[in-house]
Amino acid sequence: MAINADAIWSLLVTVRERRPLVHNITNFVVMNNSANALLALGASPAMVHSCDEVEDFVSFSHALVVNIGTLYSEQIAACKLAVLRARAVGVPWILDPVGAGATPYRRAAVGALTRLQPNVIRGNGSEILTLVRQTGAGRGVDSLHGSKAALDAARLLAQETGAVVAITGVVDYVTDGTQVMTMANGHPLMTRVTGLGCSATAVIGAFLAVEPDSLVATVAGLAVFGVAGEIAAEQAAGPGSLQVAVLDALYAMTQDDLARRLKLDKG
Amino acid sequence: MAINADAIWSLLVTVRERRPLVHNITNFVVMNNSANALLALGASPAMVHSCDEVEDFVSFSHALVVNIGTLYSEQIAACKLAVLRARAVGVPWILDPVGAGATPYRRAAVGALTRLQPNVIRGNGSEILTLVRQTGAGRGVDSLHGSKAALDAARLLAQETGAVVAITGVVDYVTDGTQVMTMANGHPLMTRVTGLGCSATAVIGAFLAVEPDSLVATVAGLAVFGVAGEIAAEQAAGPGSLQVAVLDALYAMTQDDLARRLKLDKG
Amino acid sequence: MAINADAIWSLLVTVRERRPLVHNITNFVVMNNSANALLALGASPAMVHSCDEVEDFVSFSHALVVNIGTLYSEQIAACKLAVLRARAVGVPWILDPVGAGATPYRRAAVGALTRLQPNVIRGNGSEILTLVRQTGAGRGVDSLHGSKAALDAARLLAQETGAVVAITGVVDYVTDGTQVMTMANGHPLMTRVTGLGCSATAVIGAFLAVEPDSLVATVAGLAVFGVAGEIAAEQAAGPGSLQVAVLDALYAMTQDDLARRLKLDKG
Repeated sequence: MAINADAIWSLLVTVRERRPLVHNITNFVVMNNSANALLALGASPAMVHSCDEVEDFVSFSHALVVNIGTLYSEQIAACKLAVLRARAVGVPWILDPVGAGATPYRRAAVGALTRLQPNVIRGNGSEILTLVRQTGAGRGVDSLHGSKAALDAARLLAQETGAVVAITGVVDYVTDGTQVMTMANGHPLMTRVTGLGCSATAVIGAFLAVEPDSLVATVAGLAVFGVAGEIAAEQAAGPGSLQVAVLDALYAMTQDDLARRLKLDKG
Repeated sequence: MAINADAIWSLLVTVRERRPLVHNITNFVVMNNSANALLALGASPAMVHSCDEVEDFVSFSHALVVNIGTLYSEQIAACKLAVLRARAVGVPWILDPVGAGATPYRRAAVGALTRLQPNVIRGNGSEILTLVRQTGAGRGVDSLHGSKAALDAARLLAQETGAVVAITGVVDYVTDGTQVMTMANGHPLMTRVTGLGCSATAVIGAFLAVEPDSLVATVAGLAVFGVAGEIAAEQAAGPGSLQVAVLDALYAMTQDDLARRLKLDKG
Repeated sequence: MAINADAIWSLLVTVRERRPLVHNITNFVVMNNSANALLALGASPAMVHSCDEVEDFVSFSHALVVNIGTLYSEQIAACKLAVLRARAVGVPWILDPVGAGATPYRRAAVGALTRLQPNVIRGNGSEILTLVRQTGAGRGVDSLHGSKAALDAARLLAQETGAVVAITGVVDYVTDGTQVMTMANGHPLMTRVTGLGCSATAVIGAFLAVEPDSLVATVAGLAVFGVAGEIAAEQAAGPGSLQVAVLDALYAMTQDDLARRLKLDKG
């Protein structure tokens, strides 16, 4: 399947029609934003994190989003329980390793989750570099540097884990370890709003729920989110109004918006 | 007392003048929104959920809002402690059974809370149906279907529990088991913003704090919130701006807004 | 160093250039807003609250913000651990004693934290009065009353604890126990948005990260936040749009905005 604006639009239409249930175990900073991003997109979000119910809940969900932003012990357990059940019943899941390298506690948690075979991992460059080191895939990583470091790390991590790996930044990279797709949508002001990366992860989750090819779903999610951010930034007076406008743009996105704005390339 | 636009306006004025303290034990997704809805309305919100202080705090509050959205074990305990104290000291309370039927854990928690005699229960149709089954009031419920199912379930639940029961949707129903009031305010875009139902519950809580008749308080809260949503939807470009505009509309609502827009009927 | 609009502008430029890492252990209601206020200002926020990592995290942060809004047992422990490490490694910290006097549990927690020598304490008048009583500094406090009560309490608390104490309200007071600075920026509509006081505390934290004189940093933080609130209120239709506009104003603030609007006096 060719990944282009038409294919991405078709998947967005599918999300809007099917309204997939996306189970989020995410951080307290962004719960509201991620839920609203999913609703604006057309999906059906649920924020459910108790160890007493995550296994039941994930069983009838269409995708699982795991985000470790405001990590605590019971959350790690809940993530593991949900992920194990998700894998058992065939529900795809995506890992957002927020702040992966910040502390030993966080490194250990994210290492354990990475070993549970996420379908997709989305992070920024330094988070992905940390993961590569954690999983042992990064034997050559310390020599990685310059503009190619993040992408090379992503490719290694994808090969090691079997996950599609996305690095978001000024340019977004998505790789399955072999193919690489690059996207240049979005806007610098997006870095001044908390949790837009987390929202992007949640949006990818919605596409995973309707598209079995993880590479395609990830590219679609990032494309739609990047284009929404770009539209929003043109209307915003600052980060406050940007946060609001991103949700409006996700909701109102047209085929023409995608076709005109998408900056997607191979390699 | 006749429930009409004048009576509702009078209660809104009372809320604005008295600024009742509304104690919320609510979910992490909507804490910010519920607090802001109460502030915009003119009430004084507090989000207090530790078992170590909920009993003390509820004692000097004017109403208690219990919402199980992001349920966890200590929260269930905190809710029970707060409710028992609220009942002991005569503080009215309202239950929002978010996702009541989703998992066995959630069904058990919401069943236990329903048995603690809430003054009001507000949910969507399927949440109310779940509660009816949980409390055993739903002996005939499995045969309920079609457009009347939710309302019949609400009436049964009200009779069984003594609570006023509100079902919100395209049309809102409020019943004490005998009388039924219907409201047709609001806007479909409201379903694309997370937690507006939770905000409606919080707003009812503010009216319960100033009006001893639970049916009147519930109708007033839903009327004010529905009219605010309607005003907001006329100004919004999508769900992001709608969320902002609802707060502005709650804050700025006039007697004329209510009088012109209210769609309230008996039966 | 004279504290005036030029000095405050210079510090704001420093925050924007250095992007200090501000570690927040804060309440669930305002996590998103505080993070966004810090990002809009130009700082780098982190919300990290697990006992398993707060000591590590605070070690490489530039300031620590402790806010007890939605207090629970593990949070108290996390705050203590983070504060003890912050003091050991020379990271400044600020305490926001939300609702300090509401319950015995809260009074005990806030008393214990106050004794751990915060660099700054920011609260409203009644919160500061509660702290004075808790620390025993308030031997004469019960006789304090009228318009001067809050300021006299702040001065006592500063002398007793060594902290700079800020009381925010229609007029803000900042004192180190000897000097007093007053500010008259801000807008009444700000009281109708939840957590703007908490955001002010977080913003002071960012200034503490770049300015060793706690009195100067506190005045700078409140000045910038008050001016942002004032600018925002001129554009807002109500509390919803105010919350958005405050972030835009923090982001876009110019030297001229500060110079024209600042209402700062001694005594």
